[in-house]
Amino acid sequence: MSEVLDLTRALIEQRSVTPDDAGCQALIRTRLERAGFECEQLPFGEVDNLWAVHGSDGPTLVLLGHTDVVPPGPREAWASDPFVPEIRDGVLYGRGAADMKGSVAAFVVALERFVAAHPEHRGRVALLLTSDEEGDAIDGVRKVAEVFRARGERLDWCITGEPSSTAELGDLLRVGRRGTLSATLTVRGIQGHVAYPDKARNPIHQALPALAELAARRWDEGYESFPPTSLQISNVHAGTGANNVIPGELQVLFNLRFNPNWQAAQLEAECETVLRRHGLEYAVHWHRGGEPFYTPEGPLRAAARDVLARFAGRPPEESTGGGTSDARFIAPLGAQCVEIGPVNASIHKVDEHVSVADLEALPDVYLAMMERLLTD
Amino acid sequence: MSEVLDLTRALIEQRSVTPDDAGCQALIRTRLERAGFECEQLPFGEVDNLWAVHGSDGPTLVLLGHTDVVPPGPREAWASDPFVPEIRDGVLYGRGAADMKGSVAAFVVALERFVAAHPEHRGRVALLLTSDEEGDAIDGVRKVAEVFRARGERLDWCITGEPSSTAELGDLLRVGRRGTLSATLTVRGIQGHVAYPDKARNPIHQALPALAELAARRWDEGYESFPPTSLQISNVHAGTGANNVIPGELQVLFNLRFNPNWQAAQLEAECETVLRRHGLEYAVHWHRGGEPFYTPEGPLRAAARDVLARFAGRPPEESTGGGTSDARFIAPLGAQCVEIGPVNASIHKVDEHVSVADLEALPDVYLAMMERLLTD
Repeated sequence: MSEVLDLTRALIEQRSVTPDDAGCQALIRTRLERAGFECEQLPFGEVDNLWAVHGSDGPTLVLLGHTDVVPPGPREAWASDPFVPEIRDGVLYGRGAADMKGSVAAFVVALERFVAAHPEHRGRVALLLTSDEEGDAIDGVRKVAEVFRARGERLDWCITGEPSSTAELGDLLRVGRRGTLSATLTVRGIQGHVAYPDKARNPIHQALPALAELAARRWDEGYESFPPTSLQISNVHAGTGANNVIPGELQVLFNLRFNPNWQAAQLEAECETVLRRHGLEYAVHWHRGGEPFYTPEGPLRAAARDVLARFAGRPPEESTGGGTSDARFIAPLGAQCVEIGPVNASIHKVDEHVSVADLEALPDVYLAMMERLLTD
Repeated sequence: MSEVLDLTRALIEQRSVTPDDAGCQALIRTRLERAGFECEQLPFGEVDNLWAVHGSDGPTLVLLGHTDVVPPGPREAWASDPFVPEIRDGVLYGRGAADMKGSVAAFVVALERFVAAHPEHRGRVALLLTSDEEGDAIDGVRKVAEVFRARGERLDWCITGEPSSTAELGDLLRVGRRGTLSATLTVRGIQGHVAYPDKARNPIHQALPALAELAARRWDEGYESFPPTSLQISNVHAGTGANNVIPGELQVLFNLRFNPNWQAAQLEAECETVLRRHGLEYAVHWHRGGEPFYTPEGPLRAAARDVLARFAGRPPEESTGGGTSDARFIAPLGAQCVEIGPVNASIHKVDEHVSVADLEALPDVYLAMMERLLTD
């Protein structure tokens, strides 16, 4: 049994359903302190966050991960217990195997090897773990980033262990993510009888041209490798079922996925300009899910490309696709961010798994990144 | 106690919640047969319909009414039992007092007096009652009109007893009603994740321009005393609450209230042209609630104006407003239709009532109409 496999199994056995860390970080802290890391716990609410650093001045490379997992769903749906790791045909099964206890275990093993081989490495190497990536993502890296900003913590490079490979380990390098912004819009009218439209004000009729304009707008033509910014209306609700009543209110939910052409505040202002221009009486609640980030060509991206090409046999696709990750909170601190992790085909599903061969290669991938960035 | 008050009370005591006649028509039939009317029961499904005629050749005047009432709601909400008629301060309370057992009782009393005074009157005087005006309105006058059309029944004039007065008896003469047409529209798209709009087809986005066009359209500028034709969207529903899912389907209900510029079939065609031109994948279910009717200047309208002016002290407002009534089924048979009845302020509400003075005047109003139209 390999070291990374052992640690991954030990982590899977902890039932750390988000936001419960269930002891994962304590286990890791013990190992890293033994390896010479300075460790700090940054708990917020129910959420555990661990910050472990080795080294002193100079550039800082952070490995970013989470110990929480999504709920497994019904036990019967799984071929084996989601919290009892099991290897079948060279594949390790268990909740979190791919997202992302395997990556976290590989981080730890790589960090131990790195500081053992390079006790006097350049700059700082660090690990940041949270137990709130899969849940609300409020008391996790978002809060830690506020602490870092307050105390002037300088971060240069960040590698997130999110499972980003698509068919085989290292075939995709995530170099950015779109931002996400959600709106809950209420348009108010005046209820009435359909036979007397003059005595009512139909909020659906009033909102239609504004919503049509927002939906039709071409926000941009894309940005570098990002797709165009997109607004999607996901929900519309008005009326009680009766076809003779003009409703008094329309509820609309919409979401924007946006590239680095935009910041959330600009998009909010643009949308509200449209709503106001159409004379709507409205209330809107905005939820900023995360700003976009993008890591242009530079030392981190070049290192990641070279390392993955070596392991996979060919250069990775460099992508800005997918949903969101905790890198959205670290990038605004000024850090370049990439995401490197195992194949993501089974994440959030039953029988989540990771290939044992990929898992055993992963510490070497992260180790190669550290050597490239923090040794001469 | 007056005759019309006695009969109104007897009718209110029958719990004829739509479509249950609860014995009202049998009670009336007995009286009218005694007065020399030929009576015919035309039941369809659960619905009772009574057709009573006096006289032979010549023009036919029909009095049109319904014996069913809307449900009273909770007993506690009423000051007195809705099915126990009670007079307080010169006002008769009970479900149906105004809509329209008072009018029906006045019809009966007026018919009895008319044929007693004018046994050899010109043409025919008739009463048509249904127990399905407040409900589905499928097995009531709609079905009777089909029977009449099949057997070539000729109707010239029709007075509906709907409570049409607004502040005092006779202040409003209804000379037409708009038509009503309802649509249940389903717009189909392709469900997907908001992060990948290219892999989905958002039915809300697709439908918005078409719905905006339908809602903004000026269908006409009105017709005689009718207001402009109006389309109102009453319900829109799409999405399950999640703001990251593009829904697969949008449900829309809309209703048209239209004047005699239009027939339902034309409006359906116009709407579908818009839906198709916008390339929607849709299904629509149309419900034709009733074609519009209009009674232009002529003997019936002139008689009604004069009679009401005499009772109210000034000429009535002549209106085509309001919702729908069973006149929509009689008018297409070629009959001129007006609606004359008590004050409608309390209809469909708790503590429904009619002024005893108005109720006692009502038989004279209807009697005056008969004398004007069927005697020399």
